Amino acid sequence: MKALRVNNRLVRVEEIGSPATEGEALVRVTKSGICNTDLEIVRGYAGFTGTIGHEFVGVVEEPGDLAELKGKRVVGEINAGCGECDLCVGGDSRHCPRRTVLGILGRDGAHAEFLTLPPRNLISVPDNVSDDSAVFAEPLAAAFGIFERVPIDRETRVAVIGDGKLGLLCAMVMRLRSDSVMVVGKHAEKLAIAGKRDVETVKLERVENLRRSFDVVVEASGSESGFATASDMVKTRGTIVLKSTFHGATVWEASRFVVDELSVVGSRCGRLAPALELLASNQIRTDDLVSEEFTLENGVDALDHATKSGVLKVLLKP
Amino acid sequence: MKALRVNNRLVRVEEIGSPATEGEALVRVTKSGICNTDLEIVRGYAGFTGTIGHEFVGVVEEPGDLAELKGKRVVGEINAGCGECDLCVGGDSRHCPRRTVLGILGRDGAHAEFLTLPPRNLISVPDNVSDDSAVFAEPLAAAFGIFERVPIDRETRVAVIGDGKLGLLCAMVMRLRSDSVMVVGKHAEKLAIAGKRDVETVKLERVENLRRSFDVVVEASGSESGFATASDMVKTRGTIVLKSTFHGATVWEASRFVVDELSVVGSRCGRLAPALELLASNQIRTDDLVSEEFTLENGVDALDHATKSGVLKVLLKP
Repeated sequence: MKALRVNNRLVRVEEIGSPATEGEALVRVTKSGICNTDLEIVRGYAGFTGTIGHEFVGVVEEPGDLAELKGKRVVGEINAGCGECDLCVGGDSRHCPRRTVLGILGRDGAHAEFLTLPPRNLISVPDNVSDDSAVFAEPLAAAFGIFERVPIDRETRVAVIGDGKLGLLCAMVMRLRSDSVMVVGKHAEKLAIAGKRDVETVKLERVENLRRSFDVVVEASGSESGFATASDMVKTRGTIVLKSTFHGATVWEASRFVVDELSVVGSRCGRLAPALELLASNQIRTDDLVSEEFTLENGVDALDHATKSGVLKVLLKP
Repeated sequence: MKALRVNNRLVRVEEIGSPATEGEALVRVTKSGICNTDLEIVRGYAGFTGTIGHEFVGVVEEPGDLAELKGKRVVGEINAGCGECDLCVGGDSRHCPRRTVLGILGRDGAHAEFLTLPPRNLISVPDNVSDDSAVFAEPLAAAFGIFERVPIDRETRVAVIGDGKLGLLCAMVMRLRSDSVMVVGKHAEKLAIAGKRDVETVKLERVENLRRSFDVVVEASGSESGFATASDMVKTRGTIVLKSTFHGATVWEASRFVVDELSVVGSRCGRLAPALELLASNQIRTDDLVSEEFTLENGVDALDHATKSGVLKVLLKP
């Protein structure tokens, strides 16, 4: 089968054997989505070698030990835990210390014709959710995961730094619980997408009047300067949520965090079930977040396209 | 009167007029304590000019508009708010944007024969709390303030980085709620003080076996490397509490904070009332935290002494 693989920072589409892992389900990938983390991995983040990609929708060909999955259209929890530690037994393998992660850590990923995952990681997609929507379940879950880390209610004033695909999803999700969400970005046409969701928008060069104005600031720009912007915008005793994994070190003035009693909270993966519910109920629409679809064969061009200014989600079709 | 004052990073004992502020209480200082923040201020932190010092116990000579304070032995909330903003009206001036702070921000401090504060900032000291204990009310309140920022219960495994006076107070206070508190330090004799309070101790050079072992790590070392140590010791989804105001920038790898979903929480001042209760009920003893007492006249020597290795609290007597 074809797979988009990275090896020593070289990325290319290779022809490899179909995967088969004892006890795991075999999924034929219908669509996969390119995430900024894929681009970071190509640049050396996480030191990963193998097939990249962790956002997908597909059909179960071989269900492993959960026979009822056979033929089902599914999305998948990307963290595959050991199944034995306290976290896994408690039903949350996202922080299992022995986990592998689809296309990120010790496990071939989704930009391929087939992938395998433990059957318990797969969740069936409601009929009224299209493949092009379902492929957003993973990043949407990640945005929804912010609620696990910081309380947001109607009065919480939220800013999101970054008008990329993750920033826009975070803003849409924050707007479900807060009456006041603002996206900070550089691109008028991306900000307009937020505007259509009743989210306020502001250009980065005009945030100076918004210093210390937000209870919660979500850093989703993936750039180092995003943290400095977030620090300027957050109120006394407010919270900065770190949502982007970017490759590099951040410098900060710790004394401001003590004097103003700020919090910084990391947030990675969320849960797929609430994300699918949001898509099925049309509370979140993703149609205008797709910029382009490439065939898997042209996966390298697709990655290149995804790095361009103004481009949102790029999909791959095996 | 005599006062220990800083001006352009020059610190000396000066003879100045007694303070008198319309509407404020006049307090004759009985004892004051040297905090690391005083030393940071002398080094240029916060750009302060005037009388330094914010830990004190004293006697009210002129009570301002709270006549019942006359002659009372008191300690004082160091943040003096505007009295009008929502925070101040709600009874918490610690984050009032127009606040002054005793010996730190726009207000002469406690290393002097007299100071003034708004009468509402003063709180009467129980008879069974000695002056040498009461002078610890402010830093003890700061340690207790951690509970406002992060939940600690019996099962929470807590580490405190730093065996200085603030680190030891934080460890003692954390031990009130957690069954498992460990102090990381460099000085056997300081660690022994923690050991007497049923707090575990470990030398800094031996923390390597304790990586990712603690739910909450309190950074109270006041050194830049303390943050890196705290990051190593905190568990997945754990919390680092920043307790020290040190003057400088910190470098950190933000992606670890995202992947392991860590939190960083700043903590500054606490409340005096619970601190006085802990002293009055003997739940916290501070007698072995005092290294030396100097007369105010020798304040510069006292500051110098406070910087020395192995020295804990240095007191000044006007």
